[in-house]
Amino acid sequence: MSSKFIVIEGLEGAGKTTAIQTVVETLKQQGITDLALTREPGGTPLAEKLRELIKQGVEGEPLTDKAELLMLYAARVQLVENVIKPALAEGTWIIGDRHDLSSQAYQGGGRGIDQHLMASLRQAALGDFSPDLTLYLDVPPEVGLQRALERGELDRIEKESLDFFYRTRTRYLELMAKDDSIKKIDATQPLEKVQEDIRHTLLAWLKNIG
Amino acid sequence: MSSKFIVIEGLEGAGKTTAIQTVVETLKQQGITDLALTREPGGTPLAEKLRELIKQGVEGEPLTDKAELLMLYAARVQLVENVIKPALAEGTWIIGDRHDLSSQAYQGGGRGIDQHLMASLRQAALGDFSPDLTLYLDVPPEVGLQRALERGELDRIEKESLDFFYRTRTRYLELMAKDDSIKKIDATQPLEKVQEDIRHTLLAWLKNIG
Repeated sequence: MSSKFIVIEGLEGAGKTTAIQTVVETLKQQGITDLALTREPGGTPLAEKLRELIKQGVEGEPLTDKAELLMLYAARVQLVENVIKPALAEGTWIIGDRHDLSSQAYQGGGRGIDQHLMASLRQAALGDFSPDLTLYLDVPPEVGLQRALERGELDRIEKESLDFFYRTRTRYLELMAKDDSIKKIDATQPLEKVQEDIRHTLLAWLKNIG
Repeated sequence: MSSKFIVIEGLEGAGKTTAIQTVVETLKQQGITDLALTREPGGTPLAEKLRELIKQGVEGEPLTDKAELLMLYAARVQLVENVIKPALAEGTWIIGDRHDLSSQAYQGGGRGIDQHLMASLRQAALGDFSPDLTLYLDVPPEVGLQRALERGELDRIEKESLDFFYRTRTRYLELMAKDDSIKKIDATQPLEKVQEDIRHTLLAWLKNIG
């Protein structure tokens, strides 16, 4: 089987970090040991610098929605061209902590950036490149934000209004409904049940493509 | 007369800095004293951070053409939305050291980025916003680069091949031919003659719009 790009998506506090561990363990149990992790925005030295600017902003200067979106895509292009594509070509599986779907949901849904603009930017930056499988961890915003709060200080994005996260979740669900490669995991369940669902979903998908 | 956005464009070493001084002096002689200077990429705290990343790159990581272009537009959106538009609305004239035409010429012409992509990105980022007047200082690449060399160490862009700058100049000339708001100044002439041409061009334009 050729190497694949698997992405974990979801709101703040949905449980992405634990989900990634579960995916990695499940793949290893299946004999898939050549794998690497990425995170977005970030994952290359330049993309990490952009991540910092996006997450923290610059004191006293509002970050416009469009500039945020353009920086997210600049970071993504660097990661895809310099890390993900070369790794996949060498047979390494990639497990991504967020990818393009985050921009579609947060910037397209949450910030309400024009759909046509979102689509043309995506096409310009990435062309036909997309993940083989996306696991979307679904939680209501209140649940996720409460978990994120308990973890410590909130960054610029996490300080958005609850409405912003409702719009983001709605867009996640809309996009999922239109794309068979995105599988929903109910992340409000107890941790063990979430892990079990991830394992089952991943194994069923592997069997199907194998 | 409402405030205007005047841009100085041209290859490295074309003499933009002196040209800006000439424009400022000429405007002041005409009683236009509420004016501010911008430079691109840059001109806001965030845009200056992006400028540094674009100019110097990141050690050991190739900057892809698309990421460079996206970062240039992110910086431009910040400058236009946070500085240029508010200043123009308050009656301040803006004299820009480079603007969008640089991306069209360097990234579109020099790097050969797809024209459709360039146009849709421009539209997405800036909409219908454009300078009222652009003075394009035309020099053959050899002349400009020799001057830039004499000034000191070259940055990432200035280290490009001579071919790159030929393609950039060609694109500048093509775009100028299609847009009446771009005026060509022959910057190979002796400095005093260049300044005289700038003054005459600017005064004729002011008279025309006044």
